[in-house]
Amino acid sequence: MSDHSKKSLTVLGLGDMGSALVRSWLAVGYAVTVWNRSARPAPEGAVVASTVADAVAANSLVVVCLLDDASVRATLDGIDLTGRDIVNLTTSTPAEARTLSDWIAVRGGRFLDGGIMAVPSMIGVADSGGYVFYSGSAELHETHAEALAVPAGVTYVGADAGFAALYDIALLSAMWGMFAGATHAFALIRAEDISPVEFAPLLVGYQQAMAGYAYGTAAQLASGDYAEGVESNLAMMVTTNGTLLRTAAEQGVSPELLTPFMALMERRVAEGGGKESTTGVVDLLRR
Amino acid sequence: MSDHSKKSLTVLGLGDMGSALVRSWLAVGYAVTVWNRSARPAPEGAVVASTVADAVAANSLVVVCLLDDASVRATLDGIDLTGRDIVNLTTSTPAEARTLSDWIAVRGGRFLDGGIMAVPSMIGVADSGGYVFYSGSAELHETHAEALAVPAGVTYVGADAGFAALYDIALLSAMWGMFAGATHAFALIRAEDISPVEFAPLLVGYQQAMAGYAYGTAAQLASGDYAEGVESNLAMMVTTNGTLLRTAAEQGVSPELLTPFMALMERRVAEGGGKESTTGVVDLLRR
Ligand SMILES: NC(=O)c1ccc[n+]([C@@H]2O[C@H](COP(=O)([O-])OP(=O)(O)OC[C@H]3O[C@@H](n4cnc5c(N)ncnc54)[C@H](OP(=O)(O)O)[C@@H]3O)[C@@H](O)[C@H]2O)c1
Ligand SMILES: NC(=O)c1ccc[n+]([C@@H]2O[C@H](COP(=O)([O-])OP(=O)(O)OC[C@H]3O[C@@H](n4cnc5c(N)ncnc54)[C@H](OP(=O)(O)O)[C@@H]3O)[C@@H](O)[C@H]2O)c1
Repeated sequence: MSDHSKKSLTVLGLGDMGSALVRSWLAVGYAVTVWNRSARPAPEGAVVASTVADAVAANSLVVVCLLDDASVRATLDGIDLTGRDIVNLTTSTPAEARTLSDWIAVRGGRFLDGGIMAVPSMIGVADSGGYVFYSGSAELHETHAEALAVPAGVTYVGADAGFAALYDIALLSAMWGMFAGATHAFALIRAEDISPVEFAPLLVGYQQAMAGYAYGTAAQLASGDYAEGVESNLAMMVTTNGTLLRTAAEQGVSPELLTPFMALMERRVAEGGGKESTTGVVDLLRR
Repeated sequence: MSDHSKKSLTVLGLGDMGSALVRSWLAVGYAVTVWNRSARPAPEGAVVASTVADAVAANSLVVVCLLDDASVRATLDGIDLTGRDIVNLTTSTPAEARTLSDWIAVRGGRFLDGGIMAVPSMIGVADSGGYVFYSGSAELHETHAEALAVPAGVTYVGADAGFAALYDIALLSAMWGMFAGATHAFALIRAEDISPVEFAPLLVGYQQAMAGYAYGTAAQLASGDYAEGVESNLAMMVTTNGTLLRTAAEQGVSPELLTPFMALMERRVAEGGGKESTTGVVDLLRR
């Protein structure tokens, strides 16, 4: 059933992200077979398969972009995957991706997991800055390098099928923290006659400038010397905690987004880490 | 006692930051009179005053960089400040800065508060990216514009003496959140055979790219429409919370740095904000 005269692939899932992926491949001339659980309008030019089995049989490359890991299992259960190359762009945990990789291998398919670091509007847009972490079968990744490069940038992070998800979730977690910090900052200025729109460039510029702090953390984790190259040490930062808390109280803002990090900094200082950077807090989080 | 033949000023405090400030002015030819509570080596070329009164009498421009607000009060108490221009570069809260401004005015001085967004190694270094928020007397700020531009960039944020401290603390608070997020991310990859040094550029690049999210938050706070231009809404983010928590559990990492933000997102969704961005969480923080 495959059309060998042109480049082709199958996409399972026509949600916001699945549809954006399909459009990006159609736009550069791929023949795209699609399937969605419920009836949804397919992007113009896509071939709609009526069953998962038909969709999977149509092409060796099968991209899956569904809600979650459970929906991927539910969708592929009982389907013949012999000789299929399954690329899973559904967000999942590292362990889920590893288990799915084995599950697919048992059914005769090769597996590559992907974590999409982009929103649908960035998909298929040149220089959007969006990219996809991939991990799992290096052979699959090489075979389909051209197709995989179409929706967004490609960052292959290793043969371990769980790594793409791990990198994805690690960056999302870091983003949550950054958003939490920005939320607290906006709450602080909100009580005053300060325009959030005029404040925003200062906030964005500062976060961008200080993001590089993570290079120091990484170097210290690698060397094991958490006091290496420290200018503002943890003891000073703990003093600053007090000013941050008093300011929050003055401005009528709950400090709940900052206090867990402050508590861990203080614990590390109490354990003798006053001359270190914040790197030791990484160890305190690990159980 | 002032030397009117050349540009001059006084600096109270020879800690890490005070010393860096003094060196930056000496380097461009200022005559600098210094005072420190305890005997500390003064930067070469500085004139050491033996009392606070002598130091303050030496120049109309008096820069103060001490540990905290209490140490500034203790130092200036009983000193004649008539006609003095006091620039306080000691980190304090907005309310402390406002109270100090009044306290100085009563003693006959003009007041400008500053919040230093730099570490000592950036002071006096061209294009270091460091700068100082100033607020308070616009006249003082204008009179001494040239001197104030020497240590770092200058960002004047208004006549309210508390605003420099408020901007300073708001950005530091945002940075704390960003550091907390990065800390969680490093903890997640730590259990695996992943080099933190290779991971760091991905983390830094992603935080820098996503920092611009704050522009959207600011626009929504200004318009009052928290669903304006939303692509990834709060309901989707709350679904992602589950994946973040499961991943943390798999990797043996405590989620304590992320859970307060997750809880507030969930509360806002429960209150009907599922189609919004995270902006509503700003309101939830305000008491
Ligand atoms: N949107 C983004 O910004 C973004 C960014 C990065 C990653 N992602 C990831 O991409 C994936 C898809 O996201 P999306 O935005 O496209 O989500 P979405 O718009 O909510 O679409 C969800 C898709 O999953 C299908 N589905 C749900 N439960 C299913 C089940 N039990 N069996 C079969 N199909 C099922 C839905 O089919 P029905 O139409 O039948 O309900 C629909 O096709 C998610 O894992 C998401 O985390 C999204
Ligand atoms: N270092 C940075 O990275 C940085 C960045 C931004 C802002 N700041 C702010 O700059 C200010 C100074 O920081 P720093 O790094 O220079 O601190 P530091 O090295 O610890 O020096 C503290 C200074 O305060 C003096 N002091 C402390 N208690 C005093 C008191 N009761 N009366 C009189 N003097 C007293 C100390 O005098 P003795 O020598 O007699 O103890 C010393 O001169 C702080 O408010 C800090 O938050 C620092």
